[in-house]
Amino acid sequence: MGKKTNGVGRLFGGIDVGGTKILAMVADENGNVLSTAKKKTKGEQGFKAVCERAAVTMLEAAEVEGLTLGDLTAIGVGVPTPVLPDGVAAYAPNLPGWKNAPLIKNMEAFTARPCYGVNDGNAGVYGEYVFGAGKGAKTLLGLFVGTGIGGGVCYHGELIVGENHMAAEMGHIIVQEGGRKCGCGHLGCLEAYASKTGMARKIAWEIIQEGRESILAEMVPNGNYATIKSSALQEAYRKEDPVAVEALRELAHYLGVGVASYITLLGPDMVVIGGGVFESLGKELMPFVKESARRRTWPEASYKDTKIILAQLGDHAVGLGAAAHAKHRFAAETKTS
Amino acid sequence: MGKKTNGVGRLFGGIDVGGTKILAMVADENGNVLSTAKKKTKGEQGFKAVCERAAVTMLEAAEVEGLTLGDLTAIGVGVPTPVLPDGVAAYAPNLPGWKNAPLIKNMEAFTARPCYGVNDGNAGVYGEYVFGAGKGAKTLLGLFVGTGIGGGVCYHGELIVGENHMAAEMGHIIVQEGGRKCGCGHLGCLEAYASKTGMARKIAWEIIQEGRESILAEMVPNGNYATIKSSALQEAYRKEDPVAVEALRELAHYLGVGVASYITLLGPDMVVIGGGVFESLGKELMPFVKESARRRTWPEASYKDTKIILAQLGDHAVGLGAAAHAKHRFAAETKTS
Repeated sequence: MGKKTNGVGRLFGGIDVGGTKILAMVADENGNVLSTAKKKTKGEQGFKAVCERAAVTMLEAAEVEGLTLGDLTAIGVGVPTPVLPDGVAAYAPNLPGWKNAPLIKNMEAFTARPCYGVNDGNAGVYGEYVFGAGKGAKTLLGLFVGTGIGGGVCYHGELIVGENHMAAEMGHIIVQEGGRKCGCGHLGCLEAYASKTGMARKIAWEIIQEGRESILAEMVPNGNYATIKSSALQEAYRKEDPVAVEALRELAHYLGVGVASYITLLGPDMVVIGGGVFESLGKELMPFVKESARRRTWPEASYKDTKIILAQLGDHAVGLGAAAHAKHRFAAETKTS
Repeated sequence: MGKKTNGVGRLFGGIDVGGTKILAMVADENGNVLSTAKKKTKGEQGFKAVCERAAVTMLEAAEVEGLTLGDLTAIGVGVPTPVLPDGVAAYAPNLPGWKNAPLIKNMEAFTARPCYGVNDGNAGVYGEYVFGAGKGAKTLLGLFVGTGIGGGVCYHGELIVGENHMAAEMGHIIVQEGGRKCGCGHLGCLEAYASKTGMARKIAWEIIQEGRESILAEMVPNGNYATIKSSALQEAYRKEDPVAVEALRELAHYLGVGVASYITLLGPDMVVIGGGVFESLGKELMPFVKESARRRTWPEASYKDTKIILAQLGDHAVGLGAAAHAKHRFAAETKTS
């Protein structure tokens, strides 16, 4: 092993492969992040190149601590696609060439360590469950609100991924049959209302169609409001820009509709809400999410028995969740083999 | 033991306590129903009287086979309310006095056998899972369409009931935010569209507000279309009564919206659909349910990997499920004690 670290016990790698950037981290068994490294994803270079960049980013994070990849017990890889049990990435719409792509085979070739793949939203929930706001929950739902909605369901210690390993698509339940068009092509998905992309539709309507004045028009001169930074939304909201306030409260309202349906169905003891929008405006928006959920959960007792709280791990959720997932899977494999 | 039966191994009792009638049955371990007995619920006589009638109905079913209650290893009781782990019935809106009512304490006093309570919709799904259309499924969702929508989720052998034992309220996810008022008081629940009660709203609108002609008007002279028998709906549908056809296809359409959301979230390998409406018109309506679900499930692969089929156990689903539940719980208890 390289230099002595402040970590506890074995070390694990966690990689968050996003559409625009890769974030790798070394974490100990208690979820302490010892070091991180970051690179642009450069998805246009294709699947294999991204895997290699992810491995190099992981190595750079290890080197910050004076470690090599050999010091990592296992590496978890969070990716914006479902991952099948054989380590194949099913389909990442934002990454060219990521369709039935042999993710784990490549990652293990590039890192020479045991690697485990997991959907990024699922990883985020799992991270919060093991190390963050969801610690101690039995049934934990997570919703991360950014450009889209990621998330997942952790049920009695395991992620629910569906029998074909493609489920827990939290943003794509129908909340408004026949309603606003979603990026997935369907009408009325939760994500079409309760994400930046959904909110952008309302902002564009108010500013462009209705001609309302808003500082958002200056903040996003190209009119592509889905790309607005959460920090800009925060500024506009705090300055009480009426269009921003209405749009964000609509987002919170619909997120509550989704949360209500999830509670009605699964009766979780905890729901964590995170992602860029809620990192910037959680305190402001959570009361609206909760009130909307309270008015729609049935029976109401289920609402009262569910804690709805902000996520805690921020940008580290996916990487830490991937690392925890790798630890969990590695333990299961070494136990049975 | 009384006379020799044709049953296999031990015998279990299953009781379906409904709002209007009680159906009790003796079943063997393979789900063969050896005998049944039926009584009116007479809910107006209060909680304890209904428990006693349920016990007497169970005894009558046993006596048909020349048995006594002592011949039953355990008895399962399906009731129209969540049942808490301590055997307390949380709240049955249709049964006066059933609020925090000590169901199992009373049932065990009246039967002198180990009794186990379970929500009736959950029991129906569990029955289909153990003995019916859902045999072999890993994640099974069930939806029973009648006056309301009952059902549940069987995940890897166990019912998901939520951490407060009140969840899996399949009919009360929101599919049309701000939409039609549901019996639960909320707007836009699945049940407000995809149940007889929901459908009745549309029929009443078409006949009373729009003045359309329909044989349903003769079939239900009091205008309370939610009380229409499924056999009458079948007749009207097969005679191609336009109002009946439109209303039932709308029901099927919305049921598909709900099914899509359930598949998107939980990725079951199987969904069973039953209840009076689908016992009468399953063949006619299933194509509309499936097409609606197919167009809304995300990713579409999840739809393709999910079998959507008709339930098989009909009126016996709840009783058989309750009996199977009793067997399962009894085995777990005698194992650990």
